[in-house]
Amino acid sequence: MLAVTLYDTTLRDGSQRAGISYSSQDKVRIAHRLADLGIPYVEGGWPGSNPKDGEFFRLLRERPLRGAKAVAFGSTCRAGNAAESDATLAALLEAGTEAVALFGKSWDYHVTRGLGTTLEENLRMIRESVAYLKRQGREVVYDAEHLFDGFRRNPEYALATLRAAVAGGADWVVLCDTNGGTLPEDAAAVVRRVAAELPGVRLGIHAHDDSGLGVAVTLAAVRAGATMVQGTINGYGERCGNANLCAIIPNLQLKMGIPCLPEDKLRELTAASHFVSEVANLPPWDAQPFVGRNAFAHKAGVHVSALLKDPAMYEHLPPETVGNERRVLVSDVGGRSNLLAAFGDQLSPAEAAALIQQVKERESRGFQYEGAEASVALLTYKGKAPFEVLGVKLMVTGAADGPAESEVAIKLRVGDQIVHTAAEGNGPVHALDQALRKALTEVYPSVSRMQLLDYKVRVLEGSQGTGAVVRVLIESGDGEERWSTVGASSNILEASWQALTDSLAYFLIFREGAGSTAAAD
Amino acid sequence: MLAVTLYDTTLRDGSQRAGISYSSQDKVRIAHRLADLGIPYVEGGWPGSNPKDGEFFRLLRERPLRGAKAVAFGSTCRAGNAAESDATLAALLEAGTEAVALFGKSWDYHVTRGLGTTLEENLRMIRESVAYLKRQGREVVYDAEHLFDGFRRNPEYALATLRAAVAGGADWVVLCDTNGGTLPEDAAAVVRRVAAELPGVRLGIHAHDDSGLGVAVTLAAVRAGATMVQGTINGYGERCGNANLCAIIPNLQLKMGIPCLPEDKLRELTAASHFVSEVANLPPWDAQPFVGRNAFAHKAGVHVSALLKDPAMYEHLPPETVGNERRVLVSDVGGRSNLLAAFGDQLSPAEAAALIQQVKERESRGFQYEGAEASVALLTYKGKAPFEVLGVKLMVTGAADGPAESEVAIKLRVGDQIVHTAAEGNGPVHALDQALRKALTEVYPSVSRMQLLDYKVRVLEGSQGTGAVVRVLIESGDGEERWSTVGASSNILEASWQALTDSLAYFLIFREGAGSTAAAD
Repeated sequence: MLAVTLYDTTLRDGSQRAGISYSSQDKVRIAHRLADLGIPYVEGGWPGSNPKDGEFFRLLRERPLRGAKAVAFGSTCRAGNAAESDATLAALLEAGTEAVALFGKSWDYHVTRGLGTTLEENLRMIRESVAYLKRQGREVVYDAEHLFDGFRRNPEYALATLRAAVAGGADWVVLCDTNGGTLPEDAAAVVRRVAAELPGVRLGIHAHDDSGLGVAVTLAAVRAGATMVQGTINGYGERCGNANLCAIIPNLQLKMGIPCLPEDKLRELTAASHFVSEVANLPPWDAQPFVGRNAFAHKAGVHVSALLKDPAMYEHLPPETVGNERRVLVSDVGGRSNLLAAFGDQLSPAEAAALIQQVKERESRGFQYEGAEASVALLTYKGKAPFEVLGVKLMVTGAADGPAESEVAIKLRVGDQIVHTAAEGNGPVHALDQALRKALTEVYPSVSRMQLLDYKVRVLEGSQGTGAVVRVLIESGDGEERWSTVGASSNILEASWQALTDSLAYFLIFREGAGSTAAAD
Repeated sequence: MLAVTLYDTTLRDGSQRAGISYSSQDKVRIAHRLADLGIPYVEGGWPGSNPKDGEFFRLLRERPLRGAKAVAFGSTCRAGNAAESDATLAALLEAGTEAVALFGKSWDYHVTRGLGTTLEENLRMIRESVAYLKRQGREVVYDAEHLFDGFRRNPEYALATLRAAVAGGADWVVLCDTNGGTLPEDAAAVVRRVAAELPGVRLGIHAHDDSGLGVAVTLAAVRAGATMVQGTINGYGERCGNANLCAIIPNLQLKMGIPCLPEDKLRELTAASHFVSEVANLPPWDAQPFVGRNAFAHKAGVHVSALLKDPAMYEHLPPETVGNERRVLVSDVGGRSNLLAAFGDQLSPAEAAALIQQVKERESRGFQYEGAEASVALLTYKGKAPFEVLGVKLMVTGAADGPAESEVAIKLRVGDQIVHTAAEGNGPVHALDQALRKALTEVYPSVSRMQLLDYKVRVLEGSQGTGAVVRVLIESGDGEERWSTVGASSNILEASWQALTDSLAYFLIFREGAGSTAAAD
């Protein structure tokens, strides 16, 4: 089968996602990471539309991509304008990229109502814009906006716009489902028809996920003859997002046998996905197919006992093929076999049974260990605790606006020392966190490497109002590993305290080896 | 075309999602909501596997679903067991549901290696288990686990397992892609083959999203002849989740013309999706197709100006058909029409504009007024406040287990009196609540009629650890009406305090007429 050429638009269409705002430097870092992953076309922005994108292409000229082409994106010339004197095309050329992407209108209604011009003039704009860019030595990727919607209403005109691009000399003709409403089999039928009408033209597909079908539309278009796939890392994009390359790539390569990344690069997919979500400063999408933290996480007990016999029984592919890993969640649904899978090799059968009993008892009081492996690890820890709390006092004062100032006094045994200190915070939990770190840092300076990444509160049994049991989950990290801890109590400060102290104890014992030597590894 | 029968498994397979832990009451609320939405089969849990699910079915017998069948889920009898004396089947019957779902093995390797029994014995287990449940008067939905994986390896055996279920009298035979690795066209081919081999048998599809294709596999199976669709609200489920009913339903109904919900119920889909994520206490999935907050949110300037001319140009369907709404991200006018609809008749245009401004400013600080109408009502209130806080002091002390005792001293102006009092609680928020009520009751004894019904906490901007902004939603009631209030701050006690005082102020002003006479109505 033919190989597929990948075209990433994370930095252009993907940046339309609510909540994303890249700096030019962010974009440079992502572009290089995509090139390293082996993606041959990296669309970087629309230089005519905002100054940040112009700056990005300038930075990229200083530090060019290796093994990939940067692509600048823009529209055809305006109605009535000659291509040679059009400002948008001039900005596109100024970006200095080897390849450019040019979008034009395929849907007749968008031409007459949206652009307010004639159908004939639109064909001229497409043909002459492409031809002008070709004369300037650019590789031209023509994006046919709303092709599927336009084709449904007026197939002859939609085809005429594609012919205009081909007549201008376009190197690729990409069929865009801009509104994301097309079903896979309908998309495939259009691709087949276009392929028959334009023999020898290299076709691409650009899909969106508004119907939850972005990946499926892309795969269907490839089967129907498209050889270029446009999409974004993590499916970022406006509204529901663009077609997700993190799902498309492994489907093409592992399930359909269509190579699209260089040998061995598939194993870097999970890391690349995490890198992009970090730079975009968006929380990772844990349930994401293939590359999410939970993509190979098993909870049901009946699954886990079979997994221990043979992972292929409950996994559609080995997680390491996409650089991901298997996780076993500890929970009341799964029970015994899950715990044994996670910690079995370190425990005797009697210890394992006692641990299961302890977890069950604590879960009945509101703890939840499924997302808190570090708290479970501490339950299995039999060495000396690196610190012990001797006393804590919290004072909160305020006036008309309610509680405002929080101050904590704390007394700890840390190693063999007694530490007595105090701290303030912009809330009671923050003050407790600050005081605890301050006390521990006196003995263990490495505590400053540790960060709290996430703090989650869930009120259980909501019907009991403010007297209800509260569960706190805290996620922490030290730049290399992330771990989660849990606390539960009818007192939100006590629950937070449990999760906080577990988080620091886990760091000191399991990351820094600060407990008794027996447990440090 | 044939209508499709929807089968929801949010409460069983969906609860396998990492982070979900429903109480029995949560499950009852969701089951009733799904029945109201018009979903005819609501799978509630596996009564044999844990005590919580047994409790759920007991509660459901006290308050049965209207217009929907509750379904209990379980496995076939064990190898070597007679169906009549099998504990799993007994638990299934004990749940007392009209319909039961029974899963059995279709993949030969799972039988020999997983169950450790013979292929013949597995056929007997399926046939006799189904037949026994039928003799007990149950409608039986047979879930063929790993059907697609099994079919790929040994199609004749996979078919034999389905024939065993049919021989036992199964009412539905559901083909499950348990590991989520099957491509849509491969799934469709198997459905067509099964339909040809088992003429007259009603087939169903149960898909997972491990390949990002859960929705596509489901739609392809329906085209190939499946008439039951299993899935979950918001696509919740183990690993990457189950097939998402919130995307499947509008695709079937609006794009493929296959009715599956009663007339007009499609407009409740967005609200039902939000309800389930609230009860599950999971952050809403903003980019979710059809029902997500961003599904019809427009950011690109070029889109927005065309949208103003005609929304159909950049939307694949009108958002209101699924109960969602259009948002324009540059100037968020999302809440405006709701606000005006709720309070417009009491306000002058200038007052309405000022209110919208105030709400916008506070929402940018983390407040959310969508679910907190009582707090909005207080923003419109122009009379004298029934009480004023002059000072509050909270003292929390504890030792090794962290903060334990909470005590609050409080000073209020209530009406024309100054009240100075103190109270304890089993947590800081509870202590604040107790002190506030104690002070108010001295002047307004009716405060004792008011109850706090629910207290919810959500941490915004999770990446800032314990210094992040926290939103508190409180629901209160006086036996006749219920109302909700909101608070937001980086200090959880301040946020709780705002929602608490709003809740009491609303009661005194709008329910008891205790403010200035102008505002009492």
